[in-house]
Amino acid sequence: MQSTLSHLECSRCGRTHPCDELQGLCLCGGPLLARYDLERASRTFQPQALRSRGKTIWRYSEVLPGPLSEAVSLGEGGTPLISLKHLGPELGLKRLFVKDEAFNPTGSFKARGLAAAVTRARWLGAKALAIPSAGNAGGALAAYAAAAGLEAYIFMPCDVPQANYLECIVCGAHVVLVDGLIGDCARLLAERREEAGWFDVSTLKEPYRIEGKKTMGYELYEQCGGRLPDAILHPAGGGVGLIGMWKAFDEMEKLGWIDGVRPKMIAVQAAGCAPIVRAFSERHKESEPWRQAATLASGLRVPKALGDFLVLAAIYDSGGAAVAVTDEEIVSAVKQLARREGLFACPEGAATVAALPKLLSSGTLSAKEEVVIFNTGSGMKYLDVLDSALRQEEEGA
Amino acid sequence: MQSTLSHLECSRCGRTHPCDELQGLCLCGGPLLARYDLERASRTFQPQALRSRGKTIWRYSEVLPGPLSEAVSLGEGGTPLISLKHLGPELGLKRLFVKDEAFNPTGSFKARGLAAAVTRARWLGAKALAIPSAGNAGGALAAYAAAAGLEAYIFMPCDVPQANYLECIVCGAHVVLVDGLIGDCARLLAERREEAGWFDVSTLKEPYRIEGKKTMGYELYEQCGGRLPDAILHPAGGGVGLIGMWKAFDEMEKLGWIDGVRPKMIAVQAAGCAPIVRAFSERHKESEPWRQAATLASGLRVPKALGDFLVLAAIYDSGGAAVAVTDEEIVSAVKQLARREGLFACPEGAATVAALPKLLSSGTLSAKEEVVIFNTGSGMKYLDVLDSALRQEEEGA
Repeated sequence: MQSTLSHLECSRCGRTHPCDELQGLCLCGGPLLARYDLERASRTFQPQALRSRGKTIWRYSEVLPGPLSEAVSLGEGGTPLISLKHLGPELGLKRLFVKDEAFNPTGSFKARGLAAAVTRARWLGAKALAIPSAGNAGGALAAYAAAAGLEAYIFMPCDVPQANYLECIVCGAHVVLVDGLIGDCARLLAERREEAGWFDVSTLKEPYRIEGKKTMGYELYEQCGGRLPDAILHPAGGGVGLIGMWKAFDEMEKLGWIDGVRPKMIAVQAAGCAPIVRAFSERHKESEPWRQAATLASGLRVPKALGDFLVLAAIYDSGGAAVAVTDEEIVSAVKQLARREGLFACPEGAATVAALPKLLSSGTLSAKEEVVIFNTGSGMKYLDVLDSALRQEEEGA
Repeated sequence: MQSTLSHLECSRCGRTHPCDELQGLCLCGGPLLARYDLERASRTFQPQALRSRGKTIWRYSEVLPGPLSEAVSLGEGGTPLISLKHLGPELGLKRLFVKDEAFNPTGSFKARGLAAAVTRARWLGAKALAIPSAGNAGGALAAYAAAAGLEAYIFMPCDVPQANYLECIVCGAHVVLVDGLIGDCARLLAERREEAGWFDVSTLKEPYRIEGKKTMGYELYEQCGGRLPDAILHPAGGGVGLIGMWKAFDEMEKLGWIDGVRPKMIAVQAAGCAPIVRAFSERHKESEPWRQAATLASGLRVPKALGDFLVLAAIYDSGGAAVAVTDEEIVSAVKQLARREGLFACPEGAATVAALPKLLSSGTLSAKEEVVIFNTGSGMKYLDVLDSALRQEEEGA
């Protein structure tokens, strides 16, 4: 069950880098991806062998950064795949499932990535970690840094949701509130980072958050009974959920677990910030920065993702799509999921439900297909954002 | 994997009742407990056989109400048992673990009980369910009723935490805000119930919530590698967590899984509402109603639990204890768990951490013992309660 991590490879230029020291981006500016000795991994890393392992992401330790004995774990991964028995048929889908990432520590899928990144950063000698965050990533870093005994510096916009701010504070993180947007937070962090000796764990600026996220793909394979669904819908801010799963499928194909047939990878964005949807509609390989990004789904407020070209490649290669939904549709989908299925999803997760009718009417999805949507976190962390919209329901009482 | 439920038995007078119709309390006022054909169950219900089953509470379906095919499930159960690597040694315990119930749907252990109760109530023909709740039980009922396609009527005090109110509203429950305490809510519900045709799913007033809760005991046995820890600390409001686990241990002994040696069962209450602690200190079999109950841990604001005599019996039989902690100690423990372990616990869960030094100094616990504390829910649902206390940490930023 030991990690078979061998080196890092640039996702843009292909240059290799050693994996036994702290690494940021490639010299060319491209994100680095972890590579493993999959032949060695396959000796122990087989679907049957997994059955007797624990349910956290560390069950996949051969294809995660290690060492396993030093893993910083709060119980991340092993989230349920739940059948949407009412909503599926109502939307015209016989087999609709939600992978509910709210079951992670700190209530969002960000826990997977930070578990892997914090584990590796501590092992390679980092003492203090820093991140710009307008949402759940900050809380996840604060929790994992606390568990690891490391310092965390979190740069947040002043208008960050109360839940995200307080979860950082309670875990003892140093929170810097910035009068600006997430880009301003990132700039301020970059200015201070070197002098302060912080290691930057921004999405894709270090190689291992994506490794934690990719475990969603391995879990899906196991939960679908040793195969993959016909389509996967995932909200795309930074896009690392989709990139991570695509990387997992690449590895699984090399390991001989699956053939070349892949699920359609479908990115869902908010109409107020949809750079990947625009690029997809113009068949571009990269996105252009979105101006005046605005949506209540704070996790989707990413004007230009560092890994946009990887998201778009996965979409094109899989015959997938990118689709935008409005904030009104998102709020309506939050209520729909709660009232019909008892699931209080985050706005980003609910966006995937709002996307389904559009994808069915465009023919991207068909009624017979098995579809998995991702709820990336708990609606509980968005109470101040959703409060007034939800209270409109009071009249029903 | 079918349920072997055979009948119901009064926990006070021993009278039996049929299990194939909706049941409330016994004629004598005692709570009814579910009884199973354990001999039949043991044909398939064995520790080894469990390994290949799913991770929800329904893996224990032989000793749960059924039918399994009609289970209303949102992914409840299978919560992680996490080693407190920093706090344990700091408190003087080598083996300290937390069973983190925040990983349940709706973020609390209430999901287990309502999953079982809603499943059975729907099967037996209930159309509308009602509950008085000042906290997490209301949200759990709202979610499971929505998933089951049933109506939910929830009576809450006006000052209920925002999170609990909104999670009910979003799931489409009918919330009645009452200008009073939880007892006033219960009275109002009782007055309207019969005419309205609601089935009352208050704790222990129907027989199956405890069945869902007891699965914590079965999980603990599995997660400890086929044995039980030396001591279990659980916050006690209604006390059903402790009663449920004690019932599971009884069943496990009859099934031949364990011998007669049991963990010390330790109930933790708030100093502002500690009826069971008072009864324990006076070696009484039942508690007296606590006047002017006051604590920020809303789940512990229960002046007189219906099952107090069952909690106290488990404490006495196991050589356990009941201990009270102040609100100041609770808030301090919330911060301690978050800062040292990355775990943002609810006040009720944090109370168990605050109790540890007292139990060690009184000799109830010793340094060598393996101790499991229960965090019954996520701190995220108490942000308005904890806000000012947490913001005192800002100076550290």
